Amino acid sequence: MANQITFDRQTYINRRLKFIEEVKTGMYFFMGNDDIGANYKDNVYPFRQDSTFLYYFGINQPNLYGLIDADTGKTYIFGDDIGIDHIIWMGKLPLLSELADNVGIDMVLPLSKTRDYVSRNAHYLPPYRGDHYLFFNTNLGMNVDETDQHVSTKMIKAVVKQRSIKETQEIEELHKAVNATAEMHGHILKSARPGLKEYELVGMAAQKAWELGCTWSFNPIMTKNGQTLHNHDYHNMLKDGQMLLFDGGCQMPSLYAGDMTRTMPVGKRFDTRQEEVYQIVLAALDHSVSLLKPGVRYLDVHLAAGRVLFEGLKSLGITKGNTEEAVNAGAHSVFFQCGLGHMMGLDVHDMENLGEPIVGYHENLIKSTAFGLRSLRLGKELEEGFVITVEPGLYFIPELIDLRRSEGQYKEFINYDELEKYKNFGGIRIEDDYVISKDGYTLLGQPLAKSIEDIYGLRDQAF
Amino acid sequence: MANQITFDRQTYINRRLKFIEEVKTGMYFFMGNDDIGANYKDNVYPFRQDSTFLYYFGINQPNLYGLIDADTGKTYIFGDDIGIDHIIWMGKLPLLSELADNVGIDMVLPLSKTRDYVSRNAHYLPPYRGDHYLFFNTNLGMNVDETDQHVSTKMIKAVVKQRSIKETQEIEELHKAVNATAEMHGHILKSARPGLKEYELVGMAAQKAWELGCTWSFNPIMTKNGQTLHNHDYHNMLKDGQMLLFDGGCQMPSLYAGDMTRTMPVGKRFDTRQEEVYQIVLAALDHSVSLLKPGVRYLDVHLAAGRVLFEGLKSLGITKGNTEEAVNAGAHSVFFQCGLGHMMGLDVHDMENLGEPIVGYHENLIKSTAFGLRSLRLGKELEEGFVITVEPGLYFIPELIDLRRSEGQYKEFINYDELEKYKNFGGIRIEDDYVISKDGYTLLGQPLAKSIEDIYGLRDQAF
Repeated sequence: MANQITFDRQTYINRRLKFIEEVKTGMYFFMGNDDIGANYKDNVYPFRQDSTFLYYFGINQPNLYGLIDADTGKTYIFGDDIGIDHIIWMGKLPLLSELADNVGIDMVLPLSKTRDYVSRNAHYLPPYRGDHYLFFNTNLGMNVDETDQHVSTKMIKAVVKQRSIKETQEIEELHKAVNATAEMHGHILKSARPGLKEYELVGMAAQKAWELGCTWSFNPIMTKNGQTLHNHDYHNMLKDGQMLLFDGGCQMPSLYAGDMTRTMPVGKRFDTRQEEVYQIVLAALDHSVSLLKPGVRYLDVHLAAGRVLFEGLKSLGITKGNTEEAVNAGAHSVFFQCGLGHMMGLDVHDMENLGEPIVGYHENLIKSTAFGLRSLRLGKELEEGFVITVEPGLYFIPELIDLRRSEGQYKEFINYDELEKYKNFGGIRIEDDYVISKDGYTLLGQPLAKSIEDIYGLRDQAF
Repeated sequence: MANQITFDRQTYINRRLKFIEEVKTGMYFFMGNDDIGANYKDNVYPFRQDSTFLYYFGINQPNLYGLIDADTGKTYIFGDDIGIDHIIWMGKLPLLSELADNVGIDMVLPLSKTRDYVSRNAHYLPPYRGDHYLFFNTNLGMNVDETDQHVSTKMIKAVVKQRSIKETQEIEELHKAVNATAEMHGHILKSARPGLKEYELVGMAAQKAWELGCTWSFNPIMTKNGQTLHNHDYHNMLKDGQMLLFDGGCQMPSLYAGDMTRTMPVGKRFDTRQEEVYQIVLAALDHSVSLLKPGVRYLDVHLAAGRVLFEGLKSLGITKGNTEEAVNAGAHSVFFQCGLGHMMGLDVHDMENLGEPIVGYHENLIKSTAFGLRSLRLGKELEEGFVITVEPGLYFIPELIDLRRSEGQYKEFINYDELEKYKNFGGIRIEDDYVISKDGYTLLGQPLAKSIEDIYGLRDQAF
């Protein structure tokens, strides 16, 4: 499976030609990923190829490098075939020359030759693993700071331009990834019940992902503490009356990712307060999605979601004052601290390693440094072919509420006495994935229950 | 869970005191592990602490370093607490000073101070991640080769001496890890059936491990191609008549590991040939185990297993001649290519990162470079408190059979014409875990079916 090429030969040839057309001149170095030992060298983490390498070179195997010489139009792969000793341990694998031929490359050179071809003048993308920095140190004598300084903005821009607009065949893969993701979420919606530990549900999600021939696109969040945004602790016992937030995604063998979130009652029904907050989040999702189309700035969709959330909390007595002014002042960031969504593709946060200034923003739209907005990974104008997540939420974080109150912030927009009553509420997020079409958007994957009524329908099957 | 200390405060104090007693003088640097991004910095692999750091410093959290100054007896932890921004994303975590106090350390310094304390004169253990090398490069200006050259043999020896002899409380944790491992294997023995894909069974193993509050101690092998020793490909559909080899282990929250292998018929019964080969492997396991006791060289147990395997294959007409001579010549390595077993503890291959010359051998017993024997990780005399795996197997690897035949090797010991008939047979391994006691050995965990009769008993429950 790891050796299969996802798309046909011509796809990879065309992608590289398009890249060369964009950059016109120069040498471009694409670093494939290597195996990494968890607690010793040979106890490796599951291999994860670099997404940009995979996009242009198609081979899902460790310890390979790619090089595009835009001046001559030549493309190289550097790597070594395995010997008899490795065949005994790993089984027979196709020759690198065969794999390279599958993606239309005829220049295959041993790893030892990399040094002869890659100079300090070569363009390269931002490193994100120690191994990457070590490569530049060992081969080009550059330390960490030098390596960071020489990253090629020109190369990042060319790659982002190309990878941002998903091909039809990529969208098909993403549909499959989100379908699997939805099925995994459906399984949890039909399995959670009081008395289970969070980690038991993580195991059920793992089983379902494997059953569908997938792995996870990221370590899932499975928590009764939805207000903790990146919670990877799973030791809590679930109790009736609590909510369970599950944020998880499947990754296809092709490495295309899905990413969804559902929040459900641990018992069969939310309580009234949970229902009220859930409805506000759902309204924010629905409103945000209705705005999706080419040309719309995602920053504006994010702020629109903030207004729906702020407005909704008025009905609970938590917020007050002019909604427009409140959101402009950032008052919504007291309970909506993160961004509305992000690009999705070969990476679940697509191209995050290439840097938000180019992936999610541009020269005329610099990312805000304000709390809340600085967590919005995508702000720029949507384009046809973008694939994005929409994931509004309301999170009641005791430490943050205390901090903002003590600072005296947003007093004109927030009734802190009312907000205090929600300090033990937790958090709710709902997330779906969309592709931007010519006139609007299309939901990726089969729709999964998200209205309270539909959630209850699945919860009734759980126990 | 990640923040809990496995053993009591005094355990860690005592371990460090014992270490100091052994090394007497010098500065000893213990590198904790950091998070590693799979495809971008924030999409991290599940965190795995370095086992030696955990052994002496007890804190299962990324981005920490430990230092023992044997001259003054002082012990330091270097690390940074998280700020409010991180609390929002990660939840409230205990302060590093609290964690350090749990393991009896009062000297907590910020990471930025590491450089002031760690000089080129400090002893350190072999790096195994790019990040480790990067640390030495960034802080001490050492390149990869220099870093490798300066690894401290004195420190390795002291750590290996201590970690090799498991404490009673460690053996209790290992019993739990192997019990979970046995339960996971029992689940697969009761679940495998024709028509399933290998990856579906991997998913069931994952679910069971999570249910038991564990993760995996390594990426499991789940394959119809048991002859491929480190097979991590799971895409095959299982068919009646085939065998399934499952080599997998659970890791406790404490990080202590289990490691077992069972080979089963995909249908309810082996065929006659499979039964015959299975019995030979089981006999090799039983005989090997019967030899376990302090003072016995594991190399000799390995060779004894080789003799049982060689002798057993005579009855099938595959081998011939004097068994003693055959095994001394290495003829058994044509179908028993790997080692009989390895140390097990906080690492499933315990201390593998510290190097086999010291972990598995010593000055008077250098590891053989001969094919087969060079894959035996443990050769030296067993001691009370060692925890080891015993895992004989018979593997019919077509490429190796062809190679040995073409070389004309072992002609006096192997009937290649008969062996040819087994080229499509696959491979069988059976593996259990043992602790060496004063007079012999104790099986770790509850016994799991391994006789053909008992295997059939579980297979009858499968479908």
